Amino acid sequence: MTELMPDLLKNIRDSKPLVHHLTNYVTVNDCANITLSIGASPIMADAIEESADIATISQAVVLNIGTLNAQTIPAMIAAGKAANSINVPVILDPVDAGASTFRNQTVNQLMSEVNFSVIRGNISEIKYIAGLDAITKGVDASDNDIKNIDESRTVAQKLAKRLKTVIAITGIVDVISDGNQVITIANGHKKMAEITGTGCMCTSLIGAYCGGNPDAIFQATATAILSMGIAGEIAYEKVGKLGNGHYHAAIQDVISLLTEKILRERACVTID
Amino acid sequence: MTELMPDLLKNIRDSKPLVHHLTNYVTVNDCANITLSIGASPIMADAIEESADIATISQAVVLNIGTLNAQTIPAMIAAGKAANSINVPVILDPVDAGASTFRNQTVNQLMSEVNFSVIRGNISEIKYIAGLDAITKGVDASDNDIKNIDESRTVAQKLAKRLKTVIAITGIVDVISDGNQVITIANGHKKMAEITGTGCMCTSLIGAYCGGNPDAIFQATATAILSMGIAGEIAYEKVGKLGNGHYHAAIQDVISLLTEKILRERACVTID
Amino acid sequence: MTELMPDLLKNIRDSKPLVHHLTNYVTVNDCANITLSIGASPIMADAIEESADIATISQAVVLNIGTLNAQTIPAMIAAGKAANSINVPVILDPVDAGASTFRNQTVNQLMSEVNFSVIRGNISEIKYIAGLDAITKGVDASDNDIKNIDESRTVAQKLAKRLKTVIAITGIVDVISDGNQVITIANGHKKMAEITGTGCMCTSLIGAYCGGNPDAIFQATATAILSMGIAGEIAYEKVGKLGNGHYHAAIQDVISLLTEKILRERACVTID
Repeated sequence: MTELMPDLLKNIRDSKPLVHHLTNYVTVNDCANITLSIGASPIMADAIEESADIATISQAVVLNIGTLNAQTIPAMIAAGKAANSINVPVILDPVDAGASTFRNQTVNQLMSEVNFSVIRGNISEIKYIAGLDAITKGVDASDNDIKNIDESRTVAQKLAKRLKTVIAITGIVDVISDGNQVITIANGHKKMAEITGTGCMCTSLIGAYCGGNPDAIFQATATAILSMGIAGEIAYEKVGKLGNGHYHAAIQDVISLLTEKILRERACVTID
Repeated sequence: MTELMPDLLKNIRDSKPLVHHLTNYVTVNDCANITLSIGASPIMADAIEESADIATISQAVVLNIGTLNAQTIPAMIAAGKAANSINVPVILDPVDAGASTFRNQTVNQLMSEVNFSVIRGNISEIKYIAGLDAITKGVDASDNDIKNIDESRTVAQKLAKRLKTVIAITGIVDVISDGNQVITIANGHKKMAEITGTGCMCTSLIGAYCGGNPDAIFQATATAILSMGIAGEIAYEKVGKLGNGHYHAAIQDVISLLTEKILRERACVTID
Repeated sequence: MTELMPDLLKNIRDSKPLVHHLTNYVTVNDCANITLSIGASPIMADAIEESADIATISQAVVLNIGTLNAQTIPAMIAAGKAANSINVPVILDPVDAGASTFRNQTVNQLMSEVNFSVIRGNISEIKYIAGLDAITKGVDASDNDIKNIDESRTVAQKLAKRLKTVIAITGIVDVISDGNQVITIANGHKKMAEITGTGCMCTSLIGAYCGGNPDAIFQATATAILSMGIAGEIAYEKVGKLGNGHYHAAIQDVISLLTEKILRERACVTID
C-alpha cells in the first residue's frame, strides 16, 4: 500500500481548526502564516494565565521548544494537560533536544506530564528522546545521523511503540511510525535546510492536519510532512535559483495553493 | 462628503514620527517594516525599565496584546500613561479580546488606566469591549459577526461616544467613528485574512498616521485603514495568484510605493 | 592596499560555524535566515539556564540589545563570559544605545563584564559608547551624525584602541577599525534604511564571518559589512522598484548566492 488517505487536506479547509502554538520567536511568523495557508487558524498564547484556557477552545496544540525559557515551560505543561483532558491532540517539536541540559530536562518534564499525539524532530533530536547517543548541532541533524534510513525506521518504530505516540523523523527521507506501520516520504529538497523554520513549519502543518483529522493522527502527520516536502520541491523549482529570500516566500505560496491532486501526483511515499 | 483630508501621508513622510510598539512577537517584524514603508520610524521596547522613557521620545504609542504576558502589562501601562501625560496618541489593538479571562482582564485594566486615542479591532473584539456578546475565534472575527454593517456602525458610534475615543472596526467593510461622524471603507481583499498580521499592520499604520497627524486623529485613523485596504487590493492584483508568500511581501511593496494619488483614486469611502 | 583577505567566505561555508544569538524578537527571523544564507548555522537561546552551555558549543556569540529585558541581560552576560573563557568571539550590537537610561546602563554592564571582539553600531550608538554626545532616534542614526566620515574614522580608531576591540560604524560609508588600521566601505544603498533589521543582519553576518575566521576578526568584520552592503546594492538593482517587500526578500537572495568573485568586483573599499 502506497496511498495516503484522501480528504485530509479538505477536512482542514472545511473545519478550519484553531491551532494553539506555544513556540519560539524565531519562526513564529512563518508558523502562523503556514497554518493560515493550509487552511487552519493559528493562535499563539504562551502566558501561564491563559495557555490552558486557549487550549480548551483549540483543535490542536503545538509545543515547540526552540527558544525555551522558564516562564513558558509551565504554560506549555498547562496547555498540554488541558488539551489532554479533552482529547485535543498535542504535538511536540523538541528543537535542539540534546544541545543543553536545560533543554533535555525540559523535554523530559514535558514528556512525563503531557501525553503527546505526535513528536516530530530530526534524527538527532529523536535519538535524544529515545535515549540513544546523539550529538545535536544547532537545529540541524548531525552529519553522522543522516546516513541511515534503516536506523531511522527502527528508532521511530520502537519509540512510537514504547511511547504509544506517532514519531516523525524528518530528514532527506522522512520516517513516520505509529509503532506498527512505518511510512517513508522521499519528497523535499536539500535547500530547505537553508531556510530557518522549515522544521517548525512542518510541525505547524502537523498541528493543522491533526486538528482537522483528529481520528487519523498517523495519516494526518504523514500528509503534513508530505505537504511540507512537496512545498519545498515545487518552491525550489519555481524560484530556487533566485535565492533564499524568494525560496522562503515561495514555500508559503505552494502551501496556500496546495490541492489533493498535487499531493497525489507528487507523493514519493511507502507504507509498510 | 466622501473625501478624506489630503496630505496626511505627506505629513508622515515629512515628520517621520517615531512609533513606539509594545506588541506581539508573531507579527512584529511586519509591523516594524510597514511602519518604515509608510515613512515613519518604529521602535519596539517592552521592558518596564524603559517603556515610559521611550514613550516620551515617541510621536505615537501602539499597544497590541497579541502575545500578552504578565511582564509586558505593566510596561504597556507605563508607556500609555507616559504618552498620555504629554498628549502623544496611544492606540490599542485588543487582539483576541474575549478569548480568555486573562485577555479580558488585561483589556479592562488597560482601558481603566490609559486613555486611548484609537481602538482598532475586528467586530468580535470591539463587541467584547462594548460589553456585548461576542465569541472570539482566533484572531479572526466570528462568522456570526461579520454580516451586519449597520450593527458595526451602531456599535462603533455608541462606543466612540461613550469612551471619547475613535473606534475602528475592520472587516469586509471597515467602520470608523469618533462618536459623531461615521466613515465606512469598502476597500481591501478577502485574502488578507490568510496573511497573519494584516490587523496588526493596520494598527501600526494608525500609529504612523496619528503620529504624523496628531491634530486629525479621526481622519488619520481612517486614512491608515484605507491605506491598508488599498495595499491588500493592489498586492492581490499584482501577485495574489502566486500564493500567500508573494502576497505577504507585496503588501509591504504597495505601502512603500503608496501616494496620495493612489489613495484618492482607489478610495471607496463614505463619510456621514 | 585596498584588498580584503580572500577565502573568508569560503571558510564559513567549509566550517559552517554555529552562531549563537541573544537578540531581539523584531528581526530574529531575518538574522537566522541570513546566517544560513551566508553558510553558517544559527542558534537562538536566551534563557539563563542554557545560554552559557550553548555558547560553549558555538563558534561565535552575538549579543543584540534591540528588545532588551531584565531576563535576558544575565543570560547575555553568562553567554559572553562562557565564550570569553574559551576564546570564542563575542559581537555586540548596541541597538539604540543612548535612547533610554536602561539601555545605557545595560550597555555599560555588558561592556564591563564581557570582552567583545567586535562592536557594530551606527554613529549615534558608537558615540554613546565612546562617551561623546549623541542623540539616538529610533534605530536610525540622527541626521546630525551622518555627515562626517572623518569624525567616524577618528571615533572608531580611538575607541578601538582604547577598548582593544574592533569597532564598526555602519552608515552611508562604513568605517571599521582595529585601533591601528581603518577600513572604509562605500557599498550599500540608502533604501536599506527602509528595511528593519539591516543593521541586525549585518551583525549576524559579522558573527558568521568571525566564527568562520577567528584568527582574522578585523578583516572578517569588514568583509561581513561589505557583504551586507553589496547585498543591499544588488537587491535594489534587481527588485528595488517593486517595493520594500520584494527588496527585503532579495537581500536574503543575494547573500545566499554571494561569491568571492562578487565581493571582489563590487568592493568599494579603502584600507589605511
